[in-house]
Amino acid sequence: MEKVIRVGLLGSGTVGSGVVQVLEMNREQITERVGAPIQLKTVLVRDLAKKRPQLAGYQLTDNYEDILNDEEIDIVVELMGGLHPAREYMLQAMEHGKSVVTANKDVVAQFGKDMFAAAEKHGVDFMFEASVGGGIPIITPLKQCLTANKVTEIMGIVNGTTNYMLTKMTDEGCDYDAVLKEAQEKGYAEANPSADVDGLDAARKAAILSSLAFNTRVELKDVSVEGITKITPDDIDYAKSLGYVVKLLAVGKDSPEHGVDVRVHPVFLPKEHPLAAVNGVFNAIFVRGNAIGEAMFYGQGAGSLPTASAVVSDIIDVSRDIVNKAFGRIGCTCYEQKPMCPIEETESSYYVRLLVDDKPGVLGQIATAFGDAEVSLKSVIQTKRNVVDHAEIVAVTHIVRHASIQKALDALKQLSVVDEIRNVIRVEKERG
Amino acid sequence: MEKVIRVGLLGSGTVGSGVVQVLEMNREQITERVGAPIQLKTVLVRDLAKKRPQLAGYQLTDNYEDILNDEEIDIVVELMGGLHPAREYMLQAMEHGKSVVTANKDVVAQFGKDMFAAAEKHGVDFMFEASVGGGIPIITPLKQCLTANKVTEIMGIVNGTTNYMLTKMTDEGCDYDAVLKEAQEKGYAEANPSADVDGLDAARKAAILSSLAFNTRVELKDVSVEGITKITPDDIDYAKSLGYVVKLLAVGKDSPEHGVDVRVHPVFLPKEHPLAAVNGVFNAIFVRGNAIGEAMFYGQGAGSLPTASAVVSDIIDVSRDIVNKAFGRIGCTCYEQKPMCPIEETESSYYVRLLVDDKPGVLGQIATAFGDAEVSLKSVIQTKRNVVDHAEIVAVTHIVRHASIQKALDALKQLSVVDEIRNVIRVEKERG
Repeated sequence: MEKVIRVGLLGSGTVGSGVVQVLEMNREQITERVGAPIQLKTVLVRDLAKKRPQLAGYQLTDNYEDILNDEEIDIVVELMGGLHPAREYMLQAMEHGKSVVTANKDVVAQFGKDMFAAAEKHGVDFMFEASVGGGIPIITPLKQCLTANKVTEIMGIVNGTTNYMLTKMTDEGCDYDAVLKEAQEKGYAEANPSADVDGLDAARKAAILSSLAFNTRVELKDVSVEGITKITPDDIDYAKSLGYVVKLLAVGKDSPEHGVDVRVHPVFLPKEHPLAAVNGVFNAIFVRGNAIGEAMFYGQGAGSLPTASAVVSDIIDVSRDIVNKAFGRIGCTCYEQKPMCPIEETESSYYVRLLVDDKPGVLGQIATAFGDAEVSLKSVIQTKRNVVDHAEIVAVTHIVRHASIQKALDALKQLSVVDEIRNVIRVEKERG
Repeated sequence: MEKVIRVGLLGSGTVGSGVVQVLEMNREQITERVGAPIQLKTVLVRDLAKKRPQLAGYQLTDNYEDILNDEEIDIVVELMGGLHPAREYMLQAMEHGKSVVTANKDVVAQFGKDMFAAAEKHGVDFMFEASVGGGIPIITPLKQCLTANKVTEIMGIVNGTTNYMLTKMTDEGCDYDAVLKEAQEKGYAEANPSADVDGLDAARKAAILSSLAFNTRVELKDVSVEGITKITPDDIDYAKSLGYVVKLLAVGKDSPEHGVDVRVHPVFLPKEHPLAAVNGVFNAIFVRGNAIGEAMFYGQGAGSLPTASAVVSDIIDVSRDIVNKAFGRIGCTCYEQKPMCPIEETESSYYVRLLVDDKPGVLGQIATAFGDAEVSLKSVIQTKRNVVDHAEIVAVTHIVRHASIQKALDALKQLSVVDEIRNVIRVEKERG
């Protein structure tokens, strides 16, 4: 008799419903591609009493044991989100010989190592394409298609909420609060927007991507994080006039001199950069490797069907392993323990915007303060635009150590002519 | 004793040298990722007497039998190019139980079916990521990462030579002949540029991509092809003023009503489209699927190291199958035989540029000719720019059947006021 691959689904929210829909609408093609039918057998839900028309015809349960102890179920698909009990459920599934597919960036970022170890120990697969970039294939490309490369750099727009907000601020000149309100009304941002706007969601994805790209274990605590809450229309205007756009990037770099440097923060990105044209709720991940040069992966970073595309493709991949008895073909690739680069030693070019007294000699004092900290300036402009009784100075530095820019900022704060350090944003260098 | 994966390399040109270089420079990482070392054992060359410093230390031969009959060799990497004897060599390798990795778009486009059949029959792998888009991962994404989707459309900039030329014409306003000459001097175009500028290279790639995307067998003869030789600076100027850029695209569409429609031709692409920003020698493939929505894959479409990135990643993938005894996990996915859409029934919007007599009533006659053929116009402008004693009419149609536009063009040719149909170029609709 032909093998049927049976799936237990944990969670029936936005992505879970998308998975059910994709499995139904593309059923015939999926069966052909796997060489066996995939059957969604049981769905774990919180409340059995709640009406779920999209799950009519499927077996529902509110007890995970029903899935765990069902020997027919080959694959557990975890879409509950959050650390607990998602982590424990996945570990138990693997202990019971079931492969796991998840979209859970929290668990992968924090407990990825344990998950890989469990998969290896129990001879099953652990797949997580949907944990970064929604539908965009990036985990498989890093594990497989780009694996001939030493990856030296990744840069990703991996949070749709903040990219929508920054795009809106750029296109329409609105300020942060107005844009956040609109994003919340449209359902793009949550009532408590912190995970998005403070960069924590992006930081988890940065940790996952960097671990895979650099063969090492990068955890959330290793990522330095800065959100977009301080970005103003003025910053976006200056960026435009200097030839840049403002984006929130997840950045990972690996070099023999500095070690692994992973961070999330807003940047000024040259408007010719492929990531600069990634707008609205779209995501993209840019990768630099020592063979391929530059590559970029673009698509929708969230949403029911796009994320389900990644989840179901993982289910198909695991199913092919089941049909071909080929588990663990590609295991954990984090076999090195590379040193992390301390933030003080990271290097970047910076945009610095200062509110200063509007009188002669100010520019000289400021340039001297930068110079004394060994920060050389690429450009500096002084303007009275949008300010009364004061002036603004906008400086762009050459590439300098983080410690040096901090030293310069400390010195600037001491100057009586400097009324406020309005913003400091990293500038991504021109490509080449 | 630990297994060593041994490779026989056919061809030592640009890509072959890149493969040798990538295997050397990333040796340690590759060994870790495969779980076994990969050793380049023997290289087939045309002329043993020729000096090849990049191959010092490798065993060279001018007799394929030395590789074919070497039982130690697990993988044959074919980088000779051309149909014959590449096809025969690959088939023989598989008959001898060796897996095959190739960058040969000609063989895959024309004999892909035979190759897959041979791989399945002999229980080996047949991999060809480098045959389309150089280093860009697109074959594996179509076979694996996007496999939960019904793909309805692919659009690719898959020929670097013509993209370089069109970018140059757009940025600098030069004409076709000047740009071709420069591309030839820089080595981007061959002395006989026909395969590139007439669209044949792109057509082979369109056939490969469509076969994978639509689960059917599309061959070169099924692809309607038009090159860039008729594109003038005037067309590019009109495109700009209408909000488009001109690109040579490989297009594949699949719909239940029309069947599979595969073609290569220049198009007016809205300047906001992600493909519109893909310039110079870069390539990109845009995919639309019924779950993921839009996705795009971007990178360098040619060159020694980028192409070697794809070849070596395939070698690693095959090696993982060897280590895990898991051949043929993903076989031929062209299990359907879908009908091809006859070119007359394809639908598109069109840009039509006409040289006409400069006198009253001309526009009316022309609009009537379009209308009689049931071609409705979205916009029409009449201008005397760049013409003496005449006028030009530039019309953009709504979406119409190819047969209708042909009927309109035939009628226009009959009008005494129409002196010349200067160009007809498809217009890609706005996204949404």
